[in-house]
Amino acid sequence: MDAYAHPVATPPGLLPHAEGQVERFLAVRNLTEALAAPLSAEDQSVQSMPDVSPTKWHRAHTTWFFEEFVLGPHAPGYEPVDPSYRFHFNSYYEAVGPRQERAARGVITRPSVAEVTDYRARVEDSVAQLLDQPHPPEVDALVELGLHHEQQHQELLLMDIKHVLAQNVTDPVYRAGRAPAGSSPPLDWVGFEGGQHRIGHGGTGFSYDNEGPRHTVWLEPFEIADRPVTNGEVLAFMADGGYERSELWLSDGWAAVRSGELIAPLYWCDRDGTHSTFTLGGRRQVNPNEPACHLSYYEADAIAHWMGARLPTEAEWEVAAASRPVTGNLLDLDVLHPLPSTTPPAPGVGQIYGDVWEWTASAYLPYPGFRPAAGAVGEYNGKFMSGQHVLRGGSCVTPPGHVRATYRNFFPPRARWVFSGARLARDVET
Amino acid sequence: MDAYAHPVATPPGLLPHAEGQVERFLAVRNLTEALAAPLSAEDQSVQSMPDVSPTKWHRAHTTWFFEEFVLGPHAPGYEPVDPSYRFHFNSYYEAVGPRQERAARGVITRPSVAEVTDYRARVEDSVAQLLDQPHPPEVDALVELGLHHEQQHQELLLMDIKHVLAQNVTDPVYRAGRAPAGSSPPLDWVGFEGGQHRIGHGGTGFSYDNEGPRHTVWLEPFEIADRPVTNGEVLAFMADGGYERSELWLSDGWAAVRSGELIAPLYWCDRDGTHSTFTLGGRRQVNPNEPACHLSYYEADAIAHWMGARLPTEAEWEVAAASRPVTGNLLDLDVLHPLPSTTPPAPGVGQIYGDVWEWTASAYLPYPGFRPAAGAVGEYNGKFMSGQHVLRGGSCVTPPGHVRATYRNFFPPRARWVFSGARLARDVET
Amino acid sequence: MDAYAHPVATPPGLLPHAEGQVERFLAVRNLTEALAAPLSAEDQSVQSMPDVSPTKWHRAHTTWFFEEFVLGPHAPGYEPVDPSYRFHFNSYYEAVGPRQERAARGVITRPSVAEVTDYRARVEDSVAQLLDQPHPPEVDALVELGLHHEQQHQELLLMDIKHVLAQNVTDPVYRAGRAPAGSSPPLDWVGFEGGQHRIGHGGTGFSYDNEGPRHTVWLEPFEIADRPVTNGEVLAFMADGGYERSELWLSDGWAAVRSGELIAPLYWCDRDGTHSTFTLGGRRQVNPNEPACHLSYYEADAIAHWMGARLPTEAEWEVAAASRPVTGNLLDLDVLHPLPSTTPPAPGVGQIYGDVWEWTASAYLPYPGFRPAAGAVGEYNGKFMSGQHVLRGGSCVTPPGHVRATYRNFFPPRARWVFSGARLARDVET
Amino acid sequence: MDAYAHPVATPPGLLPHAEGQVERFLAVRNLTEALAAPLSAEDQSVQSMPDVSPTKWHRAHTTWFFEEFVLGPHAPGYEPVDPSYRFHFNSYYEAVGPRQERAARGVITRPSVAEVTDYRARVEDSVAQLLDQPHPPEVDALVELGLHHEQQHQELLLMDIKHVLAQNVTDPVYRAGRAPAGSSPPLDWVGFEGGQHRIGHGGTGFSYDNEGPRHTVWLEPFEIADRPVTNGEVLAFMADGGYERSELWLSDGWAAVRSGELIAPLYWCDRDGTHSTFTLGGRRQVNPNEPACHLSYYEADAIAHWMGARLPTEAEWEVAAASRPVTGNLLDLDVLHPLPSTTPPAPGVGQIYGDVWEWTASAYLPYPGFRPAAGAVGEYNGKFMSGQHVLRGGSCVTPPGHVRATYRNFFPPRARWVFSGARLARDVET
Repeated sequence: MDAYAHPVATPPGLLPHAEGQVERFLAVRNLTEALAAPLSAEDQSVQSMPDVSPTKWHRAHTTWFFEEFVLGPHAPGYEPVDPSYRFHFNSYYEAVGPRQERAARGVITRPSVAEVTDYRARVEDSVAQLLDQPHPPEVDALVELGLHHEQQHQELLLMDIKHVLAQNVTDPVYRAGRAPAGSSPPLDWVGFEGGQHRIGHGGTGFSYDNEGPRHTVWLEPFEIADRPVTNGEVLAFMADGGYERSELWLSDGWAAVRSGELIAPLYWCDRDGTHSTFTLGGRRQVNPNEPACHLSYYEADAIAHWMGARLPTEAEWEVAAASRPVTGNLLDLDVLHPLPSTTPPAPGVGQIYGDVWEWTASAYLPYPGFRPAAGAVGEYNGKFMSGQHVLRGGSCVTPPGHVRATYRNFFPPRARWVFSGARLARDVET
Repeated sequence: MDAYAHPVATPPGLLPHAEGQVERFLAVRNLTEALAAPLSAEDQSVQSMPDVSPTKWHRAHTTWFFEEFVLGPHAPGYEPVDPSYRFHFNSYYEAVGPRQERAARGVITRPSVAEVTDYRARVEDSVAQLLDQPHPPEVDALVELGLHHEQQHQELLLMDIKHVLAQNVTDPVYRAGRAPAGSSPPLDWVGFEGGQHRIGHGGTGFSYDNEGPRHTVWLEPFEIADRPVTNGEVLAFMADGGYERSELWLSDGWAAVRSGELIAPLYWCDRDGTHSTFTLGGRRQVNPNEPACHLSYYEADAIAHWMGARLPTEAEWEVAAASRPVTGNLLDLDVLHPLPSTTPPAPGVGQIYGDVWEWTASAYLPYPGFRPAAGAVGEYNGKFMSGQHVLRGGSCVTPPGHVRATYRNFFPPRARWVFSGARLARDVET
Repeated sequence: MDAYAHPVATPPGLLPHAEGQVERFLAVRNLTEALAAPLSAEDQSVQSMPDVSPTKWHRAHTTWFFEEFVLGPHAPGYEPVDPSYRFHFNSYYEAVGPRQERAARGVITRPSVAEVTDYRARVEDSVAQLLDQPHPPEVDALVELGLHHEQQHQELLLMDIKHVLAQNVTDPVYRAGRAPAGSSPPLDWVGFEGGQHRIGHGGTGFSYDNEGPRHTVWLEPFEIADRPVTNGEVLAFMADGGYERSELWLSDGWAAVRSGELIAPLYWCDRDGTHSTFTLGGRRQVNPNEPACHLSYYEADAIAHWMGARLPTEAEWEVAAASRPVTGNLLDLDVLHPLPSTTPPAPGVGQIYGDVWEWTASAYLPYPGFRPAAGAVGEYNGKFMSGQHVLRGGSCVTPPGHVRATYRNFFPPRARWVFSGARLARDVET
Repeated sequence: MDAYAHPVATPPGLLPHAEGQVERFLAVRNLTEALAAPLSAEDQSVQSMPDVSPTKWHRAHTTWFFEEFVLGPHAPGYEPVDPSYRFHFNSYYEAVGPRQERAARGVITRPSVAEVTDYRARVEDSVAQLLDQPHPPEVDALVELGLHHEQQHQELLLMDIKHVLAQNVTDPVYRAGRAPAGSSPPLDWVGFEGGQHRIGHGGTGFSYDNEGPRHTVWLEPFEIADRPVTNGEVLAFMADGGYERSELWLSDGWAAVRSGELIAPLYWCDRDGTHSTFTLGGRRQVNPNEPACHLSYYEADAIAHWMGARLPTEAEWEVAAASRPVTGNLLDLDVLHPLPSTTPPAPGVGQIYGDVWEWTASAYLPYPGFRPAAGAVGEYNGKFMSGQHVLRGGSCVTPPGHVRATYRNFFPPRARWVFSGARLARDVET
């Protein structure tokens, strides 16, 4: 899910929570604070490019979301902690009113990090109180939405702070962690039949509205790789002149290559022929067995072509993933890094969840029958449906419980600060 | 088809031409010259924005295409008219070598317009000679491709010269023409069934490779409008504050509105509440009965939402158009303007071809099983398949014989100098 | 002195210090810390525009200056506190090596504010130790230079933090202070004779090399105003349409007006016809009796023309100021704001020092016979001598002891975050 | 005189012309046409960068000047040839009204070159008729001004068309001409005494108002080179790493070097170690004996420093030039190129006029006592007096009769399409 968008829940699918709701609320909130804990006030204030938001801003914006959409309308007599926060911490809700310009979030020094900590505590108390009392059922739906929203921002926070810390020439360590070994099994293909398939969310659990309606698609027979593209394959692509061969690239991608924007995956550095990469654990040598990460769509597409394959459509991906349990290298505070495959290649599609988001060939567009949700939080459900591609699967910084087979993340094709990689697909000759 | 791309023919579908081939070749070439005839050397040299190419350049580039791909490889002993033309008039073929920067085509004063005229004559003679003699069958396929390529540039030439002439505050007239009257019947809807449909080119006539393979798609039931959106509907959208209401717009479109880029369809001018528009026949009052033209994708999408509808996908469009004959307001040198509907609304989908290209909700992406064609001209078949939307149908400046139900034109969502409009679609509540 | 340049001392004019030298060193250093004391870590890290440097950077850069030019060459066995600081805190010394890009000083989060505090303490100790021991005389000259350098940065720190704090919509208060009353006496003129005059530094005290050599200039008879232009006069200029009348402006200034860059002095805000201005004491109503501040050269020039006068040359200014004692509204931690005149107009040129830097009509160029100083610190003495104008006099944020009649400050004509104002001059009709 | 500014004549110094006035008027006008004669309509329409104007525009603008300031106010019953020309061909006169945006002069295709030719003829007839009849004396002054204005544009036309033609990779020849041989004598120095000098225009002939009033300056003793810097000296500078040594450059100049903007004089090309330059006679090998041309101020300053010297101030230049007759390599249609010195070095300052404009160290600022002229044409006399440097002497494309010792040309320091070079000066050690 990108920094600009928070598609919203389908309220009818939600029922009022009961026991454990406050605990879950606090657990999600506490994880955000745990993610910010290693960061100084300076680290939390910087915006290293327009797409990045300061940590402080993420912590406050996710709090404002509860204040604006839960407490304001539903907590009788609630007074905002600070009226100026509505200006500072609204992301893009036109109906809420004017707001701090996105690209200038990093020049705001007040409120301070300490004041934001206080803001979080006060709003948390108020929400917890509201939940402890009898309350209308839409409160539960909105709190549920707010928690998924906050989980999205937990991933954004880690993407963003990685970009911030990378600006320091000293390669600071966000969190020291183990760098596990593993191997990269030879890529194998898994076949799927053509014909009618069903994709999209149709169950009763939480989902964003852009995941539905569940609907029929027609697919030709296809094969999909049993693991993501690895760093080793990217190194081979580079050694074969991949970044100098126009015939491998989309026209827009080639323009980015020629301008010097694309010369290797983001965060890679080549010193004397040895490639290192900046990670949340500091700078490390590139491990050829790990899934390639921080690729733009253009790079993912070019590498796929170089490997005689293509990227899957999101429908193909979802069909391939549908029967797999949601496990994998999801947010683990000890790792925060794509991991090499440690298991022998099973017959089947592996490393689906966690590690890296996988670019698909599909543009981010509405499903047939998609309807914008009613009400305030649904004001702009589809407004990001142009100029972006869908990514699937979740990454090593996606919180567990936040991802599923139908989840549609989306980013512009240039974006590389996402933990984004690629999985190959190919047609079946018939 | 946009200014950047020339998808190429599927050679196997072509057979050597026989009688009439030279005549057809010369007929297409002569139409280009007829289109340039009203223009002075000054008019033909200007590039009014990076997307626009000078008329002189179109005339020379379409000629270079025959020199590079037909005469060079297939006419024994052929010597290029001028070696520097390969640099000047290559559009984007990386394999052919370095070339004049696209955005700087307007600063080239040599060769002159007269020299380009001479260049055209000499290449035409050589091609005609080659066709008159025994020649390999791929020559016919390449000439056929060259003619379709030139037809594309005939439309681009008219789009571009309209933009060039519009820079003059004196509103010059490219060609005086009649401004026919007509009416705008109430919009009606035509229904189509859901289920399996077949789209894409599968016949034996000429097509670009991006039109195939023919394949199955699954559609939900839908309805499509029996005519394009009219100027009258755009005027009502504007009167209702359409350009000031963020909730109607995609996020990227709203950013373009806020920057002042989008305030009305391109070429419109509002003086004292009366809207006029610049046409190839000079400045005229906006006719509410004509199809709206020169809309960006963002405007088309916003107007559709405001009308309680949406844009069709390209598959829906093609299914709706499939059974209609290719007739309509295609390139007619007396008109060069979208025309009001002059017939009583027939039960069926009308004004499909000609008038305006119709933005679809579909991103421009490869069909299942699409394969880049082999060989020089096919070098970059799919390289424009990112960041663009598909338009269907053809406009009042599309040459007859150049368009068909499967034809996929494509442009970035911001593009407005295209003769681009919109047709509405909507879901069928089931 | 602008953010880019530190012209250096003429070493021959300096003698080794004796008693009190360490005390003076520590006093200057402590003032820097006192200026930073009200600022949070967040405040100290932000760069609100490319010309601004973070407070943290100023504190570290002035420290690095002592490490690089005093301790490194002259303290036996000295080891840098952190080798990366040479990269981070070099401002523009090409010979020292590569350095953090100026416009990206605000994305550096490490070292932290606390680490910079530690860095300052450790370098101070080392310098104090060096001064306490026998040392070569050039050490004294370099320490003296380092202290003047740090005083320049004290003013820059205040300019910059004012700009940073102004980005917060909450108008934070850097330091609450009194807002003294006063009156604005009618402007009067003081005449000076034409003919030969001597300007430039020729004494034995400290000066920057750009202040010399002392030399002869020929002036025509002139008159100069007895006080700076006031806010009241700027308000009258605005009321008379000054920002809409092209005939009052230099061409470059008018372009800045038309682009929307210049609509009132920087930091002014017009709500319902009442003008307020942002100060280091928070937002306050504009006081018409105070000297106008935060004017660009273009505005100063346009206002002078509107008042039937012109800006003085730097030679005229220096001749007029030469006999006046250096007193006035210089850096006073209780005020930090231009002050209204509180004394009845004396016969003579008043409010010369402090309050505001006064734009002169003179471009910043070398004096006749100017020679770049030898050695490391003098590497770039004249390299800023293009595209800038000279300002004279010192402002309310210039440290006492740092300014004199010959002092040449300089900034590009667009600069407005300087505490810059204007004083009028005019020709004498003969 | 730069493209943006036309300082105006001091009317009191002019008397009504009598015999020969019409002939002189037509002679200047005909020279403009002769300069345009080798150019096609395409050549005349292009604007290759914002500073350049199309030839067609120069021809029309100089004509509009007579229409606007002479015929409109003074020819009874005069009707403008075309009302839209006032919009198209006003350069920057705010009082005259809105006008074509400067950077978009190249997108105007109407009026055509032929219509401009007609416009010139009709205005010429009207002016000639007016001059043949009794007329107020200010008409003579305005015609005189219009002719000097047109002479300025003759030089601009040649500067601009050189830049336009240089965009063609085919190196077209504007006018074939001889490439005379010659030698470059060793540079020698000529000394001048310090003390009081008088500079500025004080005579009765025509001058622009920025050349006065004549006034006293005080100079230190100085020496000036007896010839301009040569290409040979630039080649030696380059061979010595001049473009890689930051210590030689002003800070702004070094930034331009680092951005890749400055790597050699404009129009130079290095192929395999041999330097060629584009000229109005086509591409030629760089002649080391010719004066260096197309230097920015930054390059002129850096080369002077590398040679152990500096640029002269404009006062020094004028004192050195004051007693020399105005002869030299001024506009000669057979040459249009700086020429090598062909005479043995005379004792004295040589090659003063023609060849190249010589950058001075002086910013373009008003002389003491300068007053804007009254009336329409004088509206903006001083409005270009910021951000530019003065050049002196005239170049090989300056019309004879247009230049004199007091003439102040001016351009921004980055400008290089001027025929601009450098002459060295140095202090006299006393």
